[in-house]
Amino acid sequence: MEEKKILLSERELPTEWYNVLPDLPEQLPPPINPATGEPIKPEDLLPVFPISLIKQEISQNRWIPIPDEVLEVYKLWRPTPLVRAYELEKYLNTPARIYYKNESVSPTGSHKPNTAVAQAYFNKIEGVKRLTTETGAGQWGSALAFACNIFGLKCRVYMVKVSYYQKPFRKSLMHIWGAEVFPSPTNLTNAGRKILAEDPDSPGSLGIAISEAIEDAVTNEDTKYSLGSVLNHVLLHQTIIGLETKKQLELINEKPDILIGCVGGGSNFGGFILPFVPEKLKGKSEVKFLAVEPTACPTLTKGLYLYDFGDTVGLTPLLKMYTLGHNFVPPKIHAGGLRYHGDAPILCYLVYKNLVEAVAYTQKAVFEAAIIFAKTEGILPAPETAHAIKAVIDEAIKCKETKEEKCIVFNFSGHGYFDINAYDQYLESKLEDVDYADEMIKKTLEEIKKLPGNV
Amino acid sequence: MEEKKILLSERELPTEWYNVLPDLPEQLPPPINPATGEPIKPEDLLPVFPISLIKQEISQNRWIPIPDEVLEVYKLWRPTPLVRAYELEKYLNTPARIYYKNESVSPTGSHKPNTAVAQAYFNKIEGVKRLTTETGAGQWGSALAFACNIFGLKCRVYMVKVSYYQKPFRKSLMHIWGAEVFPSPTNLTNAGRKILAEDPDSPGSLGIAISEAIEDAVTNEDTKYSLGSVLNHVLLHQTIIGLETKKQLELINEKPDILIGCVGGGSNFGGFILPFVPEKLKGKSEVKFLAVEPTACPTLTKGLYLYDFGDTVGLTPLLKMYTLGHNFVPPKIHAGGLRYHGDAPILCYLVYKNLVEAVAYTQKAVFEAAIIFAKTEGILPAPETAHAIKAVIDEAIKCKETKEEKCIVFNFSGHGYFDINAYDQYLESKLEDVDYADEMIKKTLEEIKKLPGNV
Repeated sequence: MEEKKILLSERELPTEWYNVLPDLPEQLPPPINPATGEPIKPEDLLPVFPISLIKQEISQNRWIPIPDEVLEVYKLWRPTPLVRAYELEKYLNTPARIYYKNESVSPTGSHKPNTAVAQAYFNKIEGVKRLTTETGAGQWGSALAFACNIFGLKCRVYMVKVSYYQKPFRKSLMHIWGAEVFPSPTNLTNAGRKILAEDPDSPGSLGIAISEAIEDAVTNEDTKYSLGSVLNHVLLHQTIIGLETKKQLELINEKPDILIGCVGGGSNFGGFILPFVPEKLKGKSEVKFLAVEPTACPTLTKGLYLYDFGDTVGLTPLLKMYTLGHNFVPPKIHAGGLRYHGDAPILCYLVYKNLVEAVAYTQKAVFEAAIIFAKTEGILPAPETAHAIKAVIDEAIKCKETKEEKCIVFNFSGHGYFDINAYDQYLESKLEDVDYADEMIKKTLEEIKKLPGNV
Repeated sequence: MEEKKILLSERELPTEWYNVLPDLPEQLPPPINPATGEPIKPEDLLPVFPISLIKQEISQNRWIPIPDEVLEVYKLWRPTPLVRAYELEKYLNTPARIYYKNESVSPTGSHKPNTAVAQAYFNKIEGVKRLTTETGAGQWGSALAFACNIFGLKCRVYMVKVSYYQKPFRKSLMHIWGAEVFPSPTNLTNAGRKILAEDPDSPGSLGIAISEAIEDAVTNEDTKYSLGSVLNHVLLHQTIIGLETKKQLELINEKPDILIGCVGGGSNFGGFILPFVPEKLKGKSEVKFLAVEPTACPTLTKGLYLYDFGDTVGLTPLLKMYTLGHNFVPPKIHAGGLRYHGDAPILCYLVYKNLVEAVAYTQKAVFEAAIIFAKTEGILPAPETAHAIKAVIDEAIKCKETKEEKCIVFNFSGHGYFDINAYDQYLESKLEDVDYADEMIKKTLEEIKKLPGNV
């Protein structure tokens, strides 16, 4: 039998990130200042981000060098393996060849450190001493805590209060790496105090936590804010995933027919597929890009391509993206990382241009797929990652019906060893299928139609 | 900078396990039947183990072929990386070169599947339909559940009741892989019912759970029992660790000066060092083998080399080993995998012959070492593994003082992502240093001095 794992040596680690912006047929719609209705200027972002990251956000250079200091940290776990899922293929009795890029081998168990390490580094060299951020279930918070620990930065994480108490494990990881973690809303910011005055028992939300983290950054010297998804520079850093995958597939003379990933804000999926986009744009490849989301938060499959706020409170610039409206409150599915009302503007543009397809699944079907993967390939996937696996299984079953020997590759974005409670609930038949609310979407989309950029 | 990770391809995976028995200068003292005082015969073990594993237990063949079916499963995560711990070296400012063999990349997060997969396979081909075992914190139980799932065997795990409720995560893993898990003592066996009749609130113990698992195996058709450490065939299967490590060190022209591992029953340490033993026996190598244990259960450093029962209840054959006495009850340290009163007879013989050295550490010092490792190398170690890390740090600091550029290699036996609560307690300064009880050891050792074999 062929080798299961396609490995690269550290010498083969890509030394540049790939920037898709210059290869797109047109400029992306610009972010808009909600106060003026005008495109925002790069310098407007300086209180929030360091100049090097702002430059990356708008860069027209196709390749951005990865600093040696970042590469040295990447080498703690990168290059990550590309693995042929022979056991899953056998179980499905499919003629398809299935591969997964295993991003779960990082210190925090997901792809998130790819950008956290880069962001911490660029802040560090510009003299920033402290980073703030928000986190839901804690994947992003723990990645930034790890990265700040490496580069000697202080790190404060505003963690959605309900997650802080219900999902304490990644909070503990953040503590181990020396970060401060507070249940949001806190008494430490005006934004937090305002919410607590209205509702002392507020469970918090990602929107509130973002507001607190940004306020903390802009009101404190030597402090900047860090975001774990959505923005162009975040997807840029994540292209290390797709660049490695490309090399690995070339090593074994494979050409992918379908690339699959789950989408919350779009950073793992974006980083995975973007290096494959130019060939498709040039007509040299017919690869299908498939984005997978939960029916509980069906941004790409039920949202509209409009300008909307990135946060819930309305503090950020307006971004053109598929959105359900910033007031949309998704049901509490276990894939917390996929509960975001919008998506990365780069990814949304590709969906709008029909270059990327999207599909949505219900929670129980996704957990069923996760168990199949754990029983065949041995690794327990994060609930987010399990969305991609569900789509992979469906595509592989289609291949069985049509007798097509397709090459299916997906991004295994993270493991589920901190999500054991969710699996317990599934196995005890306590999981409910919570579907999106068509009525609510209608309302929350209506609310944003009059925002600048949409009229 | 050199590569951090020394990788082997799947083609380089060893295809034979190494059996140290024929290379030892003499036969190991034989296991003794406690009823007769005579050495036990292989066939006495047939109600408990399949014949192929009994043959491996006493084999005098230096090399035992690894079946293709086992190799295919190994390839899901093997060969495992050998990693140069550059960041830890920098932190310690040591001239020593430190490497770790990363066994935490397996599906269950430790070295345990190396033998679980082999044991499940050999039972399967002999027509066994069902395996029973005991588990404390769950590392072994989850490994056997994984292996049984792969080969289509039923699996029942008797899990120490106090761990079942306090450490539920690995129990959930066992459920995911389809095993039955019961909090022991149960009402399902005579042994369990007897304990419950005396104490309905019994928290259970590994000794009781072993009794239940063995009774279940010997009283049920098509059922055998499986043990995760101590026995010769378990260490045999674990030599895959040391064999790979040897190849990896040769690839980079390194000769180890010190090999370090933690010891509970001795399977990870044994598997790691045994392939290096022949050269030392022949005087061709001066490598130091260092076994690390907790002061709370100081088997090798405070125990006596005597015959003793392998379990607490006194059902097993008597084994010649360093022991604290089978009635010794170690304090409840977090490194549950190191709380065993005895040790593998092979390892104990090597200690008795001064070929292996041993050292013991207190709990807080061990957790401090674990945090240093997580902050430098990024991976959170299991509390058991952290014992090895503490010794590595001490040896590296000695090198700094003596300016010796030693090559230190240790086995990173497992990650700590299911032990987060223990880290929380450490960071909140709630961990106590629970030391061994000299008085109790004196008493529990006295009790065994009159056992057959010792008089």
